[in-house]
Amino acid sequence: MGAAVIGAGYWGPNLARNLRGSADWELMAVCDLDRERATRVAESVGGAPVVTDVEEVLADPLIDAVAIATPARTHHGLVTRALEAGKHVLVEKPLAADRAAGVAMVELARERGLVLMTDHTYCYTPAVLRIRDLIAEGALGDILYVDSTRINLGLVQPDVDVLWDLAPHDLAILDFVLPGGLSAATVSASGADPLGAGRACVGYLALPLANGAMAHVQVNWLSPTKIRRMVIGGTRRTLVWDDLNPAQRLSIFDRGVDVALAGDADHAARVSYRLGDTWSPALPEQEALANVMTEFASAIRSGRPARTDGDSGLRVLSVLEAASRSLAAQGAPAPIATTVPTLIGGAA
Amino acid sequence: MGAAVIGAGYWGPNLARNLRGSADWELMAVCDLDRERATRVAESVGGAPVVTDVEEVLADPLIDAVAIATPARTHHGLVTRALEAGKHVLVEKPLAADRAAGVAMVELARERGLVLMTDHTYCYTPAVLRIRDLIAEGALGDILYVDSTRINLGLVQPDVDVLWDLAPHDLAILDFVLPGGLSAATVSASGADPLGAGRACVGYLALPLANGAMAHVQVNWLSPTKIRRMVIGGTRRTLVWDDLNPAQRLSIFDRGVDVALAGDADHAARVSYRLGDTWSPALPEQEALANVMTEFASAIRSGRPARTDGDSGLRVLSVLEAASRSLAAQGAPAPIATTVPTLIGGAA
Amino acid sequence: MGAAVIGAGYWGPNLARNLRGSADWELMAVCDLDRERATRVAESVGGAPVVTDVEEVLADPLIDAVAIATPARTHHGLVTRALEAGKHVLVEKPLAADRAAGVAMVELARERGLVLMTDHTYCYTPAVLRIRDLIAEGALGDILYVDSTRINLGLVQPDVDVLWDLAPHDLAILDFVLPGGLSAATVSASGADPLGAGRACVGYLALPLANGAMAHVQVNWLSPTKIRRMVIGGTRRTLVWDDLNPAQRLSIFDRGVDVALAGDADHAARVSYRLGDTWSPALPEQEALANVMTEFASAIRSGRPARTDGDSGLRVLSVLEAASRSLAAQGAPAPIATTVPTLIGGAA
Amino acid sequence: MGAAVIGAGYWGPNLARNLRGSADWELMAVCDLDRERATRVAESVGGAPVVTDVEEVLADPLIDAVAIATPARTHHGLVTRALEAGKHVLVEKPLAADRAAGVAMVELARERGLVLMTDHTYCYTPAVLRIRDLIAEGALGDILYVDSTRINLGLVQPDVDVLWDLAPHDLAILDFVLPGGLSAATVSASGADPLGAGRACVGYLALPLANGAMAHVQVNWLSPTKIRRMVIGGTRRTLVWDDLNPAQRLSIFDRGVDVALAGDADHAARVSYRLGDTWSPALPEQEALANVMTEFASAIRSGRPARTDGDSGLRVLSVLEAASRSLAAQGAPAPIATTVPTLIGGAA
Repeated sequence: MGAAVIGAGYWGPNLARNLRGSADWELMAVCDLDRERATRVAESVGGAPVVTDVEEVLADPLIDAVAIATPARTHHGLVTRALEAGKHVLVEKPLAADRAAGVAMVELARERGLVLMTDHTYCYTPAVLRIRDLIAEGALGDILYVDSTRINLGLVQPDVDVLWDLAPHDLAILDFVLPGGLSAATVSASGADPLGAGRACVGYLALPLANGAMAHVQVNWLSPTKIRRMVIGGTRRTLVWDDLNPAQRLSIFDRGVDVALAGDADHAARVSYRLGDTWSPALPEQEALANVMTEFASAIRSGRPARTDGDSGLRVLSVLEAASRSLAAQGAPAPIATTVPTLIGGAA
Repeated sequence: MGAAVIGAGYWGPNLARNLRGSADWELMAVCDLDRERATRVAESVGGAPVVTDVEEVLADPLIDAVAIATPARTHHGLVTRALEAGKHVLVEKPLAADRAAGVAMVELARERGLVLMTDHTYCYTPAVLRIRDLIAEGALGDILYVDSTRINLGLVQPDVDVLWDLAPHDLAILDFVLPGGLSAATVSASGADPLGAGRACVGYLALPLANGAMAHVQVNWLSPTKIRRMVIGGTRRTLVWDDLNPAQRLSIFDRGVDVALAGDADHAARVSYRLGDTWSPALPEQEALANVMTEFASAIRSGRPARTDGDSGLRVLSVLEAASRSLAAQGAPAPIATTVPTLIGGAA
Repeated sequence: MGAAVIGAGYWGPNLARNLRGSADWELMAVCDLDRERATRVAESVGGAPVVTDVEEVLADPLIDAVAIATPARTHHGLVTRALEAGKHVLVEKPLAADRAAGVAMVELARERGLVLMTDHTYCYTPAVLRIRDLIAEGALGDILYVDSTRINLGLVQPDVDVLWDLAPHDLAILDFVLPGGLSAATVSASGADPLGAGRACVGYLALPLANGAMAHVQVNWLSPTKIRRMVIGGTRRTLVWDDLNPAQRLSIFDRGVDVALAGDADHAARVSYRLGDTWSPALPEQEALANVMTEFASAIRSGRPARTDGDSGLRVLSVLEAASRSLAAQGAPAPIATTVPTLIGGAA
Repeated sequence: MGAAVIGAGYWGPNLARNLRGSADWELMAVCDLDRERATRVAESVGGAPVVTDVEEVLADPLIDAVAIATPARTHHGLVTRALEAGKHVLVEKPLAADRAAGVAMVELARERGLVLMTDHTYCYTPAVLRIRDLIAEGALGDILYVDSTRINLGLVQPDVDVLWDLAPHDLAILDFVLPGGLSAATVSASGADPLGAGRACVGYLALPLANGAMAHVQVNWLSPTKIRRMVIGGTRRTLVWDDLNPAQRLSIFDRGVDVALAGDADHAARVSYRLGDTWSPALPEQEALANVMTEFASAIRSGRPARTDGDSGLRVLSVLEAASRSLAAQGAPAPIATTVPTLIGGAA
């Protein structure tokens, strides 16, 4: 299948390189308003046609799909045009600048029977793919809590706060690995802007999950130490993903708390501990974006939604919008809008 | 000065041993309703008079002070009796089972001119004493955020949730090291009871501080990995206290974000980074409880409030009570009651 | 069975406490020339008869065994007397101050049919017991190399160098866990005395093992960082024991190098890598010295040598003496004396 | 100045890229017998003339210097030709396949007044440059010991053992940072070939330094854990360089042992400990090879030897040759040949 990259900025070269390197795809064009940038990207992958007018791409019958890496505010327009032109679409996160636009894009893709995939790259890393499998096969049991920490000395963004900048990664991963996806009904958000930067530089999200479980996300632009860690506690085992420890990225602890079924009042007596082994699976060395390209092609060929389809992008957007409302209300829980297309279409 | 220990349970032996080992104190009695327990404690410190009736202790004119290590629900009654008998009091945390009782105890001590000290032992560790000094001398600059994590595989307590069980440590430390003490006006609390234990086993507190800063506390009874870490980010430097890393307990990072004073809109441009050295001060080996005994004696002698006086115990209680209300409201911010005696008496 | 502790110095209290706490033993006496020291030890375990004349202990028919914790130079005399009096003996490491004395002690015990056990306490830690089992059951395959590191800021001893002070631990452990015990024929030792302390403060031992394998030991009194780590590389798996990491003391890496059987010259082509999982077994919490007491009793009852018998103490001594000769020869390999009694008696 | 790269294999692209990126150099040619390989390298840096005949390079008057990245056995011939053609030379490590060839190359460069620089890249990393400065300014005091560990799961090389493969890095660094360079008179080497690979896969070097100090190097191809760590103990402070810990690559411990001057026999009493702070300097982010190119140009311009000149390459070769002799003698110390040119010319 033929594909074009639209947008030759920060992420475009990675998309072009992985399309070029994929057995599923032929890179047909690199498109950017700035011909020089597009040319640089095309040359960096050994040469490819350069286009400055996106209409040219959309009109090309040999191009089956486009990979869009332009600013978020342009996603709605570009994705709509591409879908109307009959192209399958892979789009960078966030799916759109606001939820309403995202809903329209998802609905359009469904109407046209085209694949709309959100590039939640992290979900295709060997670590996250393995976490998803481990949870799906019951290795962790029922999920009790998730704690995700993503902190670093990071640029204070001019247009978005730290929740919109960093938490999409955590939310997309949660949506990918949790059995029912990211199904929280409300979110409580806290944040701080201690530098007077005009937006939160430190943020926390609490997402009550089903059956009393909870997911918590901590993001921070002001931390001199860099942490990217997710802990997923289950009734059977607990998993720790430490993305900055290449020697032991995943650890599965066969330790936990057992609660007896007896309904008596003395809860301490009902609880016992299990101190078992720790296990750290070997992970293959794979570039996540190569897996993205394979999944994109596979979804198109089999006419199924991609693993990280437009709906998943929409669920992330819905949480972010609710988090902003909760942040404004100092942590009061805000309801998360339900992904309408999913309810109506029932297709996801 | 003469002192008696009241309560020969879990903590009593430590109090007795440190009173015995202190140059400031003479251990005059170990008191417990259970004579056998009291005897065991007395023998473990090389012998001391054993008493089963607390009135005997309170009537003894050679006893200047009592150290109370009984269950929280008994604190109000015992402390009140001791203060009325003219004894200075060191009492285990929490100060009382509820805030109203705590207020009454603090007021009574103030009326009688006696020292009422809360045994916030952590505050007297070499690490926390050093943190207090570093902040006081401006080494960190203005505080931007505090992140405290205290997680472990812990017993599900029969009477209190994880916030009341573990967060008092973090709150007492914050009250001790922050320039103005624990002065938050509201708290947002989130928690989860995924085991159906009848109380939160996972909890989070967000405390907005002055000038846009925020303190956050994370506690968890269900974590197979044990973490006791506090990060204090400041405008000049950031401190990390990793209490489980004896080789490098404190690290001070001379790294951070500088925000220019210009009022323009492009905030990213206003921010710059400082990548400096890291420094880890050597800490003396001291038992915290020995420092507690010294402080207790010193406060009595000089007629000043102890560093962790009844008011500090009360501020911790006030946050916990507000946290319980916020937890019930799914994170909606709850106002923290002001410590009345401080406002009226103005003595702290 | 009745037992007495001889020597109430640094280690004596631990022996007394574990004999007292053992179901196999009755603590009959604490013996020291210094009555006050002996009394302190006896009281610390809740009381026991105090004796100052060792002959009194040896003459007591209710005392079946003695645990000796006196300076090394006194071991030969005391152990000989005890064995001649028909007592089983547990003796602190090193077995004796020199190999010849050790040989005589081992031979005497064998003649008398008594148990002579060396207190190689480390061998009875849960970690080392597990390592021994893992190797015995073939989990590591054939041993390829062992790297043991034991470094710290340590006291420069007045009478022994760093090899004699610290390496006995490593050598005793190697003797305990390696399938054929510590069977090296030679040792090469290097060392340095950069402070002019009169003896090596930094030392290295290289011990060629069977089949081309090698054990290496690194000890150092001058290191500001403390490391106690042993790596045991095998054809199937590699084990890392990090004694200072309680959260993950043992790690078994299912990674390694496979060498094909083909005899061609291009060795690089014959070698392939296996990147498998890492596994960290849970270890029980046990005091090693309690296990020592159980083993001592069990060996006596069943009339078998203790796991760490006199021969093992002798093998450690033999390596140390050879190491001193190699050190004097700047690393030239020195032959390790064979344990004569084993060869003659064939009993170990 | 104009430069050509000779050899378009593994390292050639890095040389080409850094010459191209340097303000000091103009990349005039990429030379390889294999035109295709040379072309690939030239294209990867944005285009450069491609040459297959090295004579063409040497005849070009616009080329002042050559950077040679060909197999070690070809160094002697190529470097000799280049020097005879009047070119300055940067050559990959090892300087030559044997010491005699290295001596001839160094002498020739000296005769012709040309710069012969060994590409000991590690020496130009920010960490090693800082270590050199710290030692030079006395921050560590006198050096007591050096422990260097470089272990990994590595390819068993077909032509060299693990000492020749990995230890050159450690030796080059030692030569660079130690005040008098790598001045050991003898070396003791131990090694093992437990896989029957035909050469040592595990190796140890002990190098007695001046004043009783010692350097020790541990290398291993069979380790499932990767360690690259150097500890440099000094009378004032001890430095730990952990190259795999980007968050704290260098740590300087202000802890150590003080030995009093008194000449009495009781050495334990003469020794005291200093427990001070730990300090971790921030290091700039620099590519080491860019620093190499700057140093190469600077040495040529100022007519001085490069920091890692031919003599340093020769000292490394001398140790390796002696180590091979010691290895064959099971650790017996082997004398290290003195670098003749230095003695005669006195220029280094």
